[in-house]
Amino acid sequence: MPDFPQAEYQDRLTKAQHAMVAAGFDALFLNTEAELRYFTGFRTLFWQSPTRPWFLILPQSGAPIAVIPTIGAALMRQTWVSDIRTFASPNPDDEGIGLLQDALQPFQRIGMPMGQESALRFSPADFDRLRQALKGQFSDATPLIKSLRMIKSNAEIDVISKICAIASNAFDQAESLFYADQPLSDAFRAFKIALLSAGADDVPYLVGGAGQGGYGDVISPPDGTPLAPGDVLMLDTGATLQGYFCDFDRNFAIGNTTPQARDTYRALWAATEAGIAAARPGVRTSDLFAAMAQELPQAGGDVGRFGHGLGMQLTEWPSIAANDHTILEPGMVMTLEPSAEMSTGRMMVHEENILITTGAPILLTKRAAPDLPVI
Amino acid sequence: MPDFPQAEYQDRLTKAQHAMVAAGFDALFLNTEAELRYFTGFRTLFWQSPTRPWFLILPQSGAPIAVIPTIGAALMRQTWVSDIRTFASPNPDDEGIGLLQDALQPFQRIGMPMGQESALRFSPADFDRLRQALKGQFSDATPLIKSLRMIKSNAEIDVISKICAIASNAFDQAESLFYADQPLSDAFRAFKIALLSAGADDVPYLVGGAGQGGYGDVISPPDGTPLAPGDVLMLDTGATLQGYFCDFDRNFAIGNTTPQARDTYRALWAATEAGIAAARPGVRTSDLFAAMAQELPQAGGDVGRFGHGLGMQLTEWPSIAANDHTILEPGMVMTLEPSAEMSTGRMMVHEENILITTGAPILLTKRAAPDLPVI
Repeated sequence: MPDFPQAEYQDRLTKAQHAMVAAGFDALFLNTEAELRYFTGFRTLFWQSPTRPWFLILPQSGAPIAVIPTIGAALMRQTWVSDIRTFASPNPDDEGIGLLQDALQPFQRIGMPMGQESALRFSPADFDRLRQALKGQFSDATPLIKSLRMIKSNAEIDVISKICAIASNAFDQAESLFYADQPLSDAFRAFKIALLSAGADDVPYLVGGAGQGGYGDVISPPDGTPLAPGDVLMLDTGATLQGYFCDFDRNFAIGNTTPQARDTYRALWAATEAGIAAARPGVRTSDLFAAMAQELPQAGGDVGRFGHGLGMQLTEWPSIAANDHTILEPGMVMTLEPSAEMSTGRMMVHEENILITTGAPILLTKRAAPDLPVI
Repeated sequence: MPDFPQAEYQDRLTKAQHAMVAAGFDALFLNTEAELRYFTGFRTLFWQSPTRPWFLILPQSGAPIAVIPTIGAALMRQTWVSDIRTFASPNPDDEGIGLLQDALQPFQRIGMPMGQESALRFSPADFDRLRQALKGQFSDATPLIKSLRMIKSNAEIDVISKICAIASNAFDQAESLFYADQPLSDAFRAFKIALLSAGADDVPYLVGGAGQGGYGDVISPPDGTPLAPGDVLMLDTGATLQGYFCDFDRNFAIGNTTPQARDTYRALWAATEAGIAAARPGVRTSDLFAAMAQELPQAGGDVGRFGHGLGMQLTEWPSIAANDHTILEPGMVMTLEPSAEMSTGRMMVHEENILITTGAPILLTKRAAPDLPVI
């Protein structure tokens, strides 16, 4: 069963086709998980297996064409896509490239995501062969895909709101989940179970750290070090519902804390508040970055940005950064994620998720406490 | 903290460097999660974010060179890699390509995975630019990487054995986890929590199905349909420990079952038994496929293979398939995964994980019951 009514996918296709006309593309060629799911509703964790490639063609007019391995046909038939062309896979002699080439043959100017934040989810050698066979008419369609996916529909906003609420509820149980002497890996495990129990489908992303008055980095998996009094514990989660992410963190002091940790937390909270105040349509992401940076003595640092888009992927365009000048529009879902370096190897980060509207943004997460919670 | 002692990574590099000499590569260029982790120990769920690219260069002699975004420097410094070159990211003007180009400049013949089961984890346009700047000396190193990663070290085998045992323990709780009238999505949630409680770090993969006497496909996410008496419930899990996967399934009949379901299950069990008997070093994967297929009336079908390699990824080379002629060697960890189509839209699949040794394979999973369990 697809996650949304057919009208949602039809609307996405129609918008893509209008954009194709404007950009001069005869078709879009897609091969990555988020793009295939966005236009078809084809959702499966089977993308974990790198063995088989998956392809989708969106003509400038007419219906989508799925060129996929036979193992996916039953699930693809449950979507609104009716033109499903299958190839036997795995097949070291031809992983669907022959069939794909035939399907792309009618199109002259083919757009595909090749730019910022894009990837190739099939063999680069096969892509080279395909380009050679088709005389290399592929151009970058990243701006087109970005402009569509960046603006969320009401149906998408509804799902993202739900997973943000679920994770907020899980964080509300912090006092019963986390405690001094608990190994950090146990804290992570307890929180994953709390997220699933609260209604999350999956927890593809949970990182964080713990350390005296701050933590060393923000992307590490946990080790077995026990939480100690004076530690600041941070958990940053990307839990999912129907394939849509939340992405926010919470900080907790274990037992007690230091003035520096308290002050840094307040500064980050104030920077987020400044971000919420500034996040209006028409504002550029670089302006939003500047508004948040004003509240922080050491803005930027290793993280390189103060938030980003959010949806089918944990992070999406745009970046809230000095070098990103995307104009905010109603329907964008964003994280506000200021960070501060307190000393070498000690930092703190704060994160909320918001929806850009025609007026003030709507907070999708339950706002963090203005003072560092002590548990 | 890296997952293995430094000697493990040194050994992987040494083997890669010997293979580079044989293949005529001056360096290997890597950009995907599994490959970076394999050679450095850099493990993080942060790969969920597509924003920033990550690069690793292995020279034919000498130490690895990591070319990574600043946000990853603290974690990379915890690994055995000392030559860490960082770039500010996100940066729409240059996502590390300038720095990467400088790092690759000294090498003439550069190998990178471009073939079967490979992907490109950074912008294809940037890859084109890099190739143009470096005069295109990139050749496919898939066979080299495959030959290394396919043979697991004792340390890797130990971790995979542990996650197989953890998931086996979770499946042992089936009678208390699954019941008639339970929505399928609740069954999945309960099983994920059981896996985490049993000691799994994460559950990146859980698919399955339920239906009267069999199920429709094997890659779908669950919906809310309640389990009904006579359903066969199948759960197929790729849970992880320290970034290594198990990958196996179990079938359960809810309340009662049909002779056809019972017989199909027995045939799949027998096919797995035949696979265990045939999985000796020197045997080709195509021979292993044939040995298993003999036990099944309708071999092959949509799935296209009867198992695959297993390790840092849910599925790895080789495939147990008629068109894959990889020779089994001690140290390979494989799934045996026969499937049978019972009628149009109704199938059953069975899966175990084994270690190839110098003699009989070692079963890493707790062997499924020879008769379809009824719960």
